[in-house]
Amino acid sequence: MGIVLGPNRYGKAEIRLVRVHRDGDTHGLVDFNVSIALSGELAAAHLVGDNSGVLPTDTMKNTVYAFAKEHGVGEPEVFALLLARHFVGSQPQVHGAKVSIESFAWDRLGPHSFRKRGDHIRTTVVSVTAAGTQVVSGVTGLTLLNSADSEFHGFVQDGYTTLPPTTDRILATAVDARWRHAGDDTDWAASFEGSLAALLEAFVGTYSYSLQQTLYAMGAGVLGSRPEVAEVRLALPNKHHYLADLSPFGLDNPNEVFIAGDRPYGLIEGTVARDGAPAATAEWWL
Amino acid sequence: MGIVLGPNRYGKAEIRLVRVHRDGDTHGLVDFNVSIALSGELAAAHLVGDNSGVLPTDTMKNTVYAFAKEHGVGEPEVFALLLARHFVGSQPQVHGAKVSIESFAWDRLGPHSFRKRGDHIRTTVVSVTAAGTQVVSGVTGLTLLNSADSEFHGFVQDGYTTLPPTTDRILATAVDARWRHAGDDTDWAASFEGSLAALLEAFVGTYSYSLQQTLYAMGAGVLGSRPEVAEVRLALPNKHHYLADLSPFGLDNPNEVFIAGDRPYGLIEGTVARDGAPAATAEWWL
Amino acid sequence: MGIVLGPNRYGKAEIRLVRVHRDGDTHGLVDFNVSIALSGELAAAHLVGDNSGVLPTDTMKNTVYAFAKEHGVGEPEVFALLLARHFVGSQPQVHGAKVSIESFAWDRLGPHSFRKRGDHIRTTVVSVTAAGTQVVSGVTGLTLLNSADSEFHGFVQDGYTTLPPTTDRILATAVDARWRHAGDDTDWAASFEGSLAALLEAFVGTYSYSLQQTLYAMGAGVLGSRPEVAEVRLALPNKHHYLADLSPFGLDNPNEVFIAGDRPYGLIEGTVARDGAPAATAEWWL
Amino acid sequence: MGIVLGPNRYGKAEIRLVRVHRDGDTHGLVDFNVSIALSGELAAAHLVGDNSGVLPTDTMKNTVYAFAKEHGVGEPEVFALLLARHFVGSQPQVHGAKVSIESFAWDRLGPHSFRKRGDHIRTTVVSVTAAGTQVVSGVTGLTLLNSADSEFHGFVQDGYTTLPPTTDRILATAVDARWRHAGDDTDWAASFEGSLAALLEAFVGTYSYSLQQTLYAMGAGVLGSRPEVAEVRLALPNKHHYLADLSPFGLDNPNEVFIAGDRPYGLIEGTVARDGAPAATAEWWL
Repeated sequence: MGIVLGPNRYGKAEIRLVRVHRDGDTHGLVDFNVSIALSGELAAAHLVGDNSGVLPTDTMKNTVYAFAKEHGVGEPEVFALLLARHFVGSQPQVHGAKVSIESFAWDRLGPHSFRKRGDHIRTTVVSVTAAGTQVVSGVTGLTLLNSADSEFHGFVQDGYTTLPPTTDRILATAVDARWRHAGDDTDWAASFEGSLAALLEAFVGTYSYSLQQTLYAMGAGVLGSRPEVAEVRLALPNKHHYLADLSPFGLDNPNEVFIAGDRPYGLIEGTVARDGAPAATAEWWL
Repeated sequence: MGIVLGPNRYGKAEIRLVRVHRDGDTHGLVDFNVSIALSGELAAAHLVGDNSGVLPTDTMKNTVYAFAKEHGVGEPEVFALLLARHFVGSQPQVHGAKVSIESFAWDRLGPHSFRKRGDHIRTTVVSVTAAGTQVVSGVTGLTLLNSADSEFHGFVQDGYTTLPPTTDRILATAVDARWRHAGDDTDWAASFEGSLAALLEAFVGTYSYSLQQTLYAMGAGVLGSRPEVAEVRLALPNKHHYLADLSPFGLDNPNEVFIAGDRPYGLIEGTVARDGAPAATAEWWL
Repeated sequence: MGIVLGPNRYGKAEIRLVRVHRDGDTHGLVDFNVSIALSGELAAAHLVGDNSGVLPTDTMKNTVYAFAKEHGVGEPEVFALLLARHFVGSQPQVHGAKVSIESFAWDRLGPHSFRKRGDHIRTTVVSVTAAGTQVVSGVTGLTLLNSADSEFHGFVQDGYTTLPPTTDRILATAVDARWRHAGDDTDWAASFEGSLAALLEAFVGTYSYSLQQTLYAMGAGVLGSRPEVAEVRLALPNKHHYLADLSPFGLDNPNEVFIAGDRPYGLIEGTVARDGAPAATAEWWL
Repeated sequence: MGIVLGPNRYGKAEIRLVRVHRDGDTHGLVDFNVSIALSGELAAAHLVGDNSGVLPTDTMKNTVYAFAKEHGVGEPEVFALLLARHFVGSQPQVHGAKVSIESFAWDRLGPHSFRKRGDHIRTTVVSVTAAGTQVVSGVTGLTLLNSADSEFHGFVQDGYTTLPPTTDRILATAVDARWRHAGDDTDWAASFEGSLAALLEAFVGTYSYSLQQTLYAMGAGVLGSRPEVAEVRLALPNKHHYLADLSPFGLDNPNEVFIAGDRPYGLIEGTVARDGAPAATAEWWL
C-alpha cells in the first residue's frame, strides 16, 4: 500500500492587529487576533518541496495590516469575509480560506482613552470554499453563575455512583458558544449583541435540572430571537462549586460556603439547530 | 563555617472560596483566592523533622471555610485581618502571619445570577507581626490604553540606540498597583473604589512624555485623594504597539494600524510615598 | 420552522490520576489526565430536564479511580479502551464513548523517586461507537529545532509579499501529531516509541524546503515504520526565529543571532494516510 | 505632607535570544529569555517627563542582540555580568543594573538538530550596584516526587484540624531554588550542575517528616558541596496527592491510587545560609 497526502492547509495564526480610527480628537479602537488558513494545490510543496503554489504566511500577515488601512476595520465578520474572499479570489491555486478572528472589547474612558474588558471574547470564523461562504460568530470566556434555581437529581446510579441528589446547587459555567449564520450578509453588530443577550437571558431565566437543559435553552434562545442564525453549538464546562463540609467544626452550611474547584470539571457539549436550515458548507467547531 | 537556617515561612496557597450571602431570594456573591503564610518557631521542623510547632496547612484551609461561615465575608481586607490575627493570636509559636487575597468581581444579572468581570483583580496583603499590622491593597490586570497624548523623545542615545523619537504613540499598560495603608481601620470599599478611580483618572488625564511620568502621576493621584494611604507602588509593563510599516504597499500609516507586541515589553516600576508617612512594618511587594 | 436538538455529548474532563505500582521497595509511577465524553439517549435531559438517562460525571470520575485500583494502569490506550467499553457496555442508553488521556512521563531517580520530564505529552483518544472502535495515539508539546538544512524560496509573490527568499534559516516547531491505528490491539508501548522515533528521525533527516515538506516526511516516516498505523495528522506551528538586524551597529549576522518570536506564527496542518487503509469510525482531531 | 518619589527602576523584560554557534557543520545552541532593569537618576523622568537620563528600553534590547554577536553567549552568569557592567559602566546616570536570564536547555539530536527539554529552567540574576556585584543562580520548574519515605504527623492540632497523621504519603514538589554566590567569578557550568545534583540527591535521599525538613536538606546539600555558594533560598509547593477513597466500591487503597490536586497547595519557603558568609549587596528573591 502506498502513502498519500490527505487534507491539509496552512496559514498564519495569531496576527495581533490594533486599529485606531480617528474622528478628530475622538478615536475608535479595534483589537483583533486574526488567524488565516488556506487550502488548495499544495501537493508539490509537501511532496517535493516545490513552493510555487505557496503564498508565504508572512504575506498573509502583511495583508491583514494593509487591509486594515485600506478598508478600515469594523465588525469582525466583515473583515474576515474581506480577507477570505481576497485569498480565494486572487490566488488561483487557493481553493479555500478560513479566517478566524478573536475580538477584544474595550470600554471608553475618554475621547482617546480605553479600558480593556475581560468578561468575554467575541469570535468569528469565516470559511470560503467552492461549497459556499459560511459565517460563524460566537463568544468565549463568558463566565456565568446562578446561586439558586438549579437542581440535579433523578440521574442514573451504577455501582460507582456516590453523588447525592440535590435540589439546590450553584450552577456556574464559562460559556463557549458559536452560531452559524444562514447567510453571509446581516447586521453583524446587532446579531452579536442580540445573540449574547439571548444567551444571558436563557441562562438567568432557566430553572435548571441539569446543565444540559440550560444548554438547550441557551441555544433555543438564540434561534428564537435571531432569524439569521441557522445553528448554535455550545460547550459548557460545569464549573463545580463543592459545598464545604463544616460539620467537624460544629457549623451548619446551608449552601453558603463553597469550594470552587479547578479540575476535574463536567463538560456539556451540544447543538441546537433550526429545522430545515441550510446545511453547513465547511466543517466547524465541535 | 557552619550551615544555618535563615528566614522561613509556610502556609496554604490559593484556597478558592466562594461565599453566598442570602437575603431571601436576593443573593450576594464573594469570590476569593486566599493564601496564608505563617512564620515563627519552625527550626525543629526544618532541622530534625519535629512537627510539634507546625499547624498543618490543611488546617489553614479549613479555617478559611469555617470563618467564612462564622463571620461572613465582606471586604477582603477585613477577612484577611481576621485570619491573620487568628493565627498569630491562637498559636503561641506563630509570630507572623501574612494573608493574601485575590478578589474577583462579578456583575449582577438578577437576584441570584451573576456574570464574572475580567477587567481587574482586587488584591489585599495583610501582615501581622511583632512590628505591627500592615494592610496593603491593590489592583492587578487592569489594562489601559491611550491612543493620543503620549510622546517619547529627548532620551539618551548610545551606540546601540536606533529608536526614533516620536510625538505620537499608543501608550498601553496592564496596571499592577499596590498601596500601603497608614492604619488598619478604614472604609475599605470606599478606599479601594477611590484609589481605582484615582489611578484611572491619572492615566487618562496625564499628557505623557514617558510611562515613568504616568506612573508617578498615578501614584500621586492615589495619595492626593486618599489620606489613608501612605505609599503606592506600581509596576507598569509598557505594552508596545508597533506602527505597521505599510510603505512597501504604497500606503501611508498616520498612527492608525498597529502591531500589538507580546515580548519583549518595557517594565517601569516605581514607588510614590507620602513624605513623613509611617514606615512599613513588613516587607511587601516590589 | 422548529428548533431541534442536534449532536451532543457530556462527560468529565481532566480527571487527574496518579497510580503507584509497588513491587516491594521499587515503585512504578503512572501520571494521567483523563477526559470522558458520552453520547446516547440524552434528548429528555436537554428538553425537559429529565435526568433518567444521565450517568453523573461524578460517577465517571469515580470509575477512573476505581478502575485504576481494580485493573491497574499501564499503557494509556489500554486504560482508555477499558473505560470506553465499560461505559458503552454497562449503560444501555450510552451509545458512544470517547476517552482521552494525556500521559506525563517521569524519569526514575531511585527505587521510589522520580523527576518529571517536560519534553512531550503522550496522548490517546479512544472512541467506541456502533461504527467500531477507534484508537488514536499521539504526542504534543515536542519542540524541535534544526539550525541548518532549511531553505524557503520559490514561493508565490503578490503585491503584499515582502519576505525575502532564504537558503539558510532556523526551522523550529512544537510537534502536535496524532496517528490513527488500523486496529485496536497492538503493542502500544512499542508503537508509541517507534512512532516518536520516526517523527524525530524524519525531522532531523529531512533537508527542508518548507515546513510542509517536513510535515509530509514525518507522517510518511511513521507510516513507513509502523504498519499498525493507518493515518497520521500533524499540526506544526512554524516557530519563527527572526535574524537580528545588527547592521546599525556595524556588525554582520551570518545566521548566528536570532529573535525568537511568539506571535504570529505559521501553522501547517496536514494528513498523511496509507492508501486503502480502513476509514475512520469516529471524527477525530484536525 | 508632600508626595515624594521613592525607589524605582525600569527596563526591558523578556528579550528572547537564540544564539547559534557554528563550528563547521556542528552547531551549538543557546536559548535565553533576558530581562534588564536599571536604576539611577530618574527623578526628572518621573516628575516632569524629562527623558534626558533615560536610555530607551529598545536600546537595551538592541544591546542584548549586539552583545550576543560581539561576545558570543556561553554561561548565563557570564552574559548577565557583561550586560549589567556595560550599563552601569557606560551610562553615568545609571547606578544599578539587574540582569535576569532564564535559560532553556535543548538536547542534541544531531550536528545541528535539537530537542527542547522541559524538565527545568535555569535562572540567573546579576545585580551590579555601588554596594558590589551579586550573582544568584537557580533552577525553577523542576518537578520531583517520592512515592515512599515520607511521613507527616506530630503536628499541632487546633479546633479546625481534621487532617489525619500519616506514615506514608507521596511527597511531590516543583522546586524553585536560588543560590547566591559569595563571589562573581567561578566555573558557572560546574557550579550549576553541582548544585542541581545536590538538590536532587537531597530530595531523593532524605527520609522526610515534613517538606520543611526536605527543604533544609536540599539547601544544606548545595552549601555542603559547593563552597562558592553563600546562601540558598527555596520555595517548594507541596503538590498534594490525595488518596482516592475507594471504600464505597468495596476496594482497599493501600497508597496506590491518588488524585493529583491543583489548588490549594502547601507552600514552604526557607533560607539556608553559610554561617559568616558575606552579606547580600542587593535585594533578591523571596
